[in-house]
Amino acid sequence: MPATRQFISVKEAQPPFFGGVDVGGTNIKIGIVDDLGRPMSWLSMPTDTETGPEAGVIRMAEGLGRAAQKAGVSLVDLAWIGLGTPGTMDISKGMLLEPPNLPGWWNFPICERLEFHTGRAVSFVNDANAAAYGEFWVGSGRVLNSMVMFTLGTGVGGGIIVNDVLIEGENSAGGELGHVIIDSRDDALMCNCGLRGHLEAYASATAVVRRTEAALSGGRKSSVSARVNSGDDLTTLLLAEEAEKGDELALDIVLDTATYLAIGVVTVMHTIDPSGVVIGGAMTFGSHGTQLGRSFLERLRQEIKIRTFPFLAERTVVDYASLGADAGYIGAAGIARLAYRAKLRAAADSAAK
Amino acid sequence: MPATRQFISVKEAQPPFFGGVDVGGTNIKIGIVDDLGRPMSWLSMPTDTETGPEAGVIRMAEGLGRAAQKAGVSLVDLAWIGLGTPGTMDISKGMLLEPPNLPGWWNFPICERLEFHTGRAVSFVNDANAAAYGEFWVGSGRVLNSMVMFTLGTGVGGGIIVNDVLIEGENSAGGELGHVIIDSRDDALMCNCGLRGHLEAYASATAVVRRTEAALSGGRKSSVSARVNSGDDLTTLLLAEEAEKGDELALDIVLDTATYLAIGVVTVMHTIDPSGVVIGGAMTFGSHGTQLGRSFLERLRQEIKIRTFPFLAERTVVDYASLGADAGYIGAAGIARLAYRAKLRAAADSAAK
Repeated sequence: MPATRQFISVKEAQPPFFGGVDVGGTNIKIGIVDDLGRPMSWLSMPTDTETGPEAGVIRMAEGLGRAAQKAGVSLVDLAWIGLGTPGTMDISKGMLLEPPNLPGWWNFPICERLEFHTGRAVSFVNDANAAAYGEFWVGSGRVLNSMVMFTLGTGVGGGIIVNDVLIEGENSAGGELGHVIIDSRDDALMCNCGLRGHLEAYASATAVVRRTEAALSGGRKSSVSARVNSGDDLTTLLLAEEAEKGDELALDIVLDTATYLAIGVVTVMHTIDPSGVVIGGAMTFGSHGTQLGRSFLERLRQEIKIRTFPFLAERTVVDYASLGADAGYIGAAGIARLAYRAKLRAAADSAAK
Repeated sequence: MPATRQFISVKEAQPPFFGGVDVGGTNIKIGIVDDLGRPMSWLSMPTDTETGPEAGVIRMAEGLGRAAQKAGVSLVDLAWIGLGTPGTMDISKGMLLEPPNLPGWWNFPICERLEFHTGRAVSFVNDANAAAYGEFWVGSGRVLNSMVMFTLGTGVGGGIIVNDVLIEGENSAGGELGHVIIDSRDDALMCNCGLRGHLEAYASATAVVRRTEAALSGGRKSSVSARVNSGDDLTTLLLAEEAEKGDELALDIVLDTATYLAIGVVTVMHTIDPSGVVIGGAMTFGSHGTQLGRSFLERLRQEIKIRTFPFLAERTVVDYASLGADAGYIGAAGIARLAYRAKLRAAADSAAK
């Protein structure tokens, strides 16, 4: 996490340097990253969507300048900037379309405006895809040749990288892994998107809370009830706490989430056959560092194993992400680096002719 | 289909020329293809697996020589050869592993042996992936930037191409679209692979026959019963004939197949977001040329539409394959062409240094 992360000094950093911007509904995270994917500085600011997209982009440009200064460089030293935002978006046009998490920022040419206010070239990327690329570049996926990431949060996001290429899709909908169908029945649970049976309707934080409420109103006894009755909000964090303390319902709900996730993971394994699958996002039930985290991962691996071919179960790495909330801006910077390198190669090719 | 296909003469053909070999459990199809993907000659021979893999490879080499001669060239004029086989296989090692359709040919270094007997470089590819690449190169997918193909036959195969790159997978299991999970219930139908709920357990020829038998033994009236009682084998062809004649059960079974297929298609659309989805294989219920074929495709498109986002339903092409049984050897030749071009580029790069 940012608070404890080591930042590399400009003296030790490997140029060129890249800016990464990770725009969320609540906060914008900005970091400067060196050519080896090491953060040189980091800052966060409120998104304040209500001030409008142009003001937002101006704050991002200022933030990039401050982050560059903190890193010991300046804005003009950045070779390229990567900008990650939630969808819907049109990546090739650099446009936000109708992102539900950025009200008032719809149909806005965010990429071109950030180029205008920074004077730097900007690459545009989906936020979940950026996080996946960050993990692939310098996180849990750094030893993998190809990787699929599932991001569990309010929704379920995803990203797919094959041989250093991000599968962005023809309509900027590549790696929308929250919308893989895991239950095809007519009465399957309704997803946030309005369609039924999607992974997100079972394994997102929203879905986990909804499944808990259904179990409680179905009469199941749980220490969760007492906490909710005493005024606590029913969140996945509260659920994780009660599961850690041994509450049976809370533990069932958490482990069922791993089972639902496994169905989606297996389908994507049979489609992409990646070297590894990485699980990240705010809702991950801990990590290797907690008993609940270890139980969740163990259940996930078991449920994958009974649903796939033995050779894939044996060879496909399944593990937690390791960059936490830094994955987004690091990955956005990594995408910027790919664009910068492609430009250098094109220039070299045309010089050779 | 080969019988009616126009072959291009060596005078009109665009060099370099490539050999394509499509190994099936029953027949081996071999063709010579020019640089624009146009077949110059074609032949078919029995696979005769019982004679063993080394004899099989020698027959392939002879067949390539004869096909080259028919095309007006000779074996040494082939720039590269592409070899497509059913899995399981290890593509990077050029090894057949344990292909169920090639008994006695297990754990055999088929690629190296074909290089030995032809003196040409050989690229190895999964048969369903080769067919997909053929359709992408010069068939229904020739106008698409990225494409997913589902091949309905005894089993269900698949192939995924993104920006001219075939997603082969880390363990040669990329595009195994027959094994996408479409029903996650514990009592879902059993797939040929021994796991439950896979698309292949619902939409392959084997599955369609099995579903018909279950409906008949469940007491449904159908003209299919009379034909089976008179000694005809229950096949998907018989089923298609009765559906065309207006038999209600037969039509239901065919159209249900489109619904099952749609679930798999949507999941893959939300993963890859391709420009188009192409449906091929021996079991496709006709084509645009038959009423049943048009009804099948219409049902498929409808069922996709109600399961995906409006913008994807609108923009993603869904259509039949167009190369028929030629897709495999043309695609194998196309993969050979990619390998040849990569080698030329690498040589040019190293000369420039």
